[in-house]
Amino acid sequence: MDKHKNLQLLKETFSIALDYLENSCSERNLRQNLSPAQLKEAFKISIEEKGADKTTFINYLRKIIEYSVNTNHPFFMNQMYGSQQLAALTGDIITSILNTSMYTYEVAPLMTLIEKECVAELGKYIWKNDKETDGIFTPGGSISNMMAMVMARDSRYPDSKKLGIKHLPELSIFVSDQSHYSFSKNGRILGFGEDSIVKVQSDHRGKMKIPALENAIKKEKKKNRIPLMLVGTAGLTISGAVDDLKTLTIIAKRNKMWYHVDAVYGGSLLLSQKHSTKLSGINNADSVSWNLHKMLGIPIVCAVLMTRRKHDLEKSFSISASYLFHDNEAEFDLGQKSLQCGRRVDALKLWTAWKYEGQEGFEKRIDILMEKTDLFVHKLNENDDFELFCQPETPIVCFQYKPPGIPIKELNELNKNIRTQLFEEGKMLFNYSQVNDKMLLRCVISDDEISANQIDQILEVIRDKGQIILKKSRNSKSDKKRKLVGKV
Amino acid sequence: MDKHKNLQLLKETFSIALDYLENSCSERNLRQNLSPAQLKEAFKISIEEKGADKTTFINYLRKIIEYSVNTNHPFFMNQMYGSQQLAALTGDIITSILNTSMYTYEVAPLMTLIEKECVAELGKYIWKNDKETDGIFTPGGSISNMMAMVMARDSRYPDSKKLGIKHLPELSIFVSDQSHYSFSKNGRILGFGEDSIVKVQSDHRGKMKIPALENAIKKEKKKNRIPLMLVGTAGLTISGAVDDLKTLTIIAKRNKMWYHVDAVYGGSLLLSQKHSTKLSGINNADSVSWNLHKMLGIPIVCAVLMTRRKHDLEKSFSISASYLFHDNEAEFDLGQKSLQCGRRVDALKLWTAWKYEGQEGFEKRIDILMEKTDLFVHKLNENDDFELFCQPETPIVCFQYKPPGIPIKELNELNKNIRTQLFEEGKMLFNYSQVNDKMLLRCVISDDEISANQIDQILEVIRDKGQIILKKSRNSKSDKKRKLVGKV
Repeated sequence: MDKHKNLQLLKETFSIALDYLENSCSERNLRQNLSPAQLKEAFKISIEEKGADKTTFINYLRKIIEYSVNTNHPFFMNQMYGSQQLAALTGDIITSILNTSMYTYEVAPLMTLIEKECVAELGKYIWKNDKETDGIFTPGGSISNMMAMVMARDSRYPDSKKLGIKHLPELSIFVSDQSHYSFSKNGRILGFGEDSIVKVQSDHRGKMKIPALENAIKKEKKKNRIPLMLVGTAGLTISGAVDDLKTLTIIAKRNKMWYHVDAVYGGSLLLSQKHSTKLSGINNADSVSWNLHKMLGIPIVCAVLMTRRKHDLEKSFSISASYLFHDNEAEFDLGQKSLQCGRRVDALKLWTAWKYEGQEGFEKRIDILMEKTDLFVHKLNENDDFELFCQPETPIVCFQYKPPGIPIKELNELNKNIRTQLFEEGKMLFNYSQVNDKMLLRCVISDDEISANQIDQILEVIRDKGQIILKKSRNSKSDKKRKLVGKV
Repeated sequence: MDKHKNLQLLKETFSIALDYLENSCSERNLRQNLSPAQLKEAFKISIEEKGADKTTFINYLRKIIEYSVNTNHPFFMNQMYGSQQLAALTGDIITSILNTSMYTYEVAPLMTLIEKECVAELGKYIWKNDKETDGIFTPGGSISNMMAMVMARDSRYPDSKKLGIKHLPELSIFVSDQSHYSFSKNGRILGFGEDSIVKVQSDHRGKMKIPALENAIKKEKKKNRIPLMLVGTAGLTISGAVDDLKTLTIIAKRNKMWYHVDAVYGGSLLLSQKHSTKLSGINNADSVSWNLHKMLGIPIVCAVLMTRRKHDLEKSFSISASYLFHDNEAEFDLGQKSLQCGRRVDALKLWTAWKYEGQEGFEKRIDILMEKTDLFVHKLNENDDFELFCQPETPIVCFQYKPPGIPIKELNELNKNIRTQLFEEGKMLFNYSQVNDKMLLRCVISDDEISANQIDQILEVIRDKGQIILKKSRNSKSDKKRKLVGKV
């Protein structure tokens, strides 16, 4: 393949990329509302015998951007990630061109040291002065949680690595019923079975109820099941709330359970002195999942699984493979701690952002995100036709548009319709979720440059859309009435 | 964080990137020989309170490149991947700037269709006219293999998802003793235990011996263990050889085993009409692991797990999570087939390369890689002081430098020393591996633009280094002799 010719492609790609990033916060829609069939019609996806010429190819690249969701806009509030840090993006670009695989120091010398530095730094935020912590970058929170479950098993039953789990007693893993779905999924995959995942009742914000947890443990013990692991969540998927990590510590210790904190979303609060207190107790965790591509805005994927003790990862995940891991630099062959063999470098983009912004820059980002969240809440409270669902502990705001005089059931429908229609129009993207009997709107604030005006705009747009929907439904009701009257 | 200011960083990053790529095939060393301690000394890794200024930061980026291994050079032959396709790199850049997470059609509309198109196309190369195939991009071959093991279990014992594997009979999974280490590792992780992985004896190239396999199955059955799964490898890690996939098919069927082919490396031969015949029988596989970032030169990571039947992935990996997977477009919510929740887009870079080169371009790349491999072999055979280990079936050449009159044990040491010293010098990078009593040199040809001259150069450099080492050792021996004589 002609490298020289293809460098031209790359030059044009870079210019397209800059163009997009320069305009990513502009007024254009965040998405186009096309069904799979319509999108297939609009964009020629199929692979063909002959390659495309350069002009056609470059056009494809432009169209790919056009037909993709603009996640770099402050109004992208649909997922737990958004506007990426550009200093991190520089690291991601360097990662792509260097095309390094992370298994051995031999072929990834600097990337290995950079990953180790990031892991050591993150460890300090969790475990303060404890120097014996460790960690590894993973392909995401679900897999981090899976690896934690494996370590929980292996630390209690080291023989299971060789003999399997068939001969072990029945094991139980306790999570809140609002915890991430990966625990159930992993329970299946790892051969524990979904039944071994005990979903403890939570309060309206999704926080595990402590008495319910204690009852659940008693119940499992009565069934001769061993309480293996307790999972606290810092940053629940819907409400963003944080479990009572301190009390969970006590219960985990008392029952000799592995204590894991799923801080995939909320972990980044640790970077702020002010907000880290919400995670008090996390320093007692045996392992912590933490995704830097969420609140912190590092490009996807940037996820770590952290361990309080130095060798827990190796104990579960190292294996001999002499052709790959030669013996000289074992401490620096990170493949020995990973579920993966070949692995993209996910640490460099975190490192470049950290190096450029400094610890104080990261702290500032988190503080500002929380300030913007508080501002959002303040504005909700100022407006009688909005109702906050619960005080946010992380930059997620759940609320309802609630004009007076509308019955609950209709309110739910109204809110769902508002979200659906705005999503289809593509001007602002946020999610919805049913909690108990309430349909909530849910905005994740991921852009620290979102302005007070833009927050006002969000509420206005929701209100306007709500009013239009209400008016239409009133009209169609009176239409129906008229028709009925006419018929009689 | 100041987006406008940081766009400047990105501009400079792009120019650094182009600069590197334009010169990546030049004469500069492929790596610098620094220990972790030396590298820490040379490069300021530590994260600090204050951020770096722009000039310092840009300097870091340059230094990162300087201290990293140049994997884009034809002489990077150390791993099973190398020179990446630049048309693929354009897709990786677009992936980075768009920062899309792959779980739902809602936020990843075009990327979902592109992933589905790639999976459908790859399926055709494996299963020809069978239209009911499926697949998913994964974080790498180890995890693809893990997912295949889970599907093997679930298809036979669907209840295990709910109840776990405790109540199942003991299960056995058969692999060649030269198969990838991930099977043993996954056996542990999934709770089967490492003992359930039966490593069948292989011939000198690493191919599973069929009679040994049949004996092993009999033996396991006698122990009341159920033969659950048979794994064939297409492209063994050391020799690159391909198992006898046709015969394995028959044995798998006869014993009602799930048949998985680990074609992580060798899968790309399927893209060439000429070389695909080496994988005859793969169309009988229930599942196939295939990494496009290896032989095909797509940037890391680009890996798929393919299934012959449409719903096997969902059966094992889907789970309800109403806040994320709303009900409208389930077929297009790829999160339902994945081990991951959030996931980087790994399909776009494959798609851009495929679209630009066409099917014929991919075929040509594979054909040329094999031609270059044959040329390498031809040159080895032409030179009496080199010995080919076995006829390559994929672009991996294993051989020894073998000047006449040197005893086997010394030959092994000589070859290991040659590799070590050349690796340290950094002019060309290849690996070594002990197979039975032989220490082999192992070159993976990943750059289709490697020239005949460069292949000559490889042999010359090895010979020269060998001669220097031999001379030194002769001198030091006669020195010793002289000293001994002097002493007497």
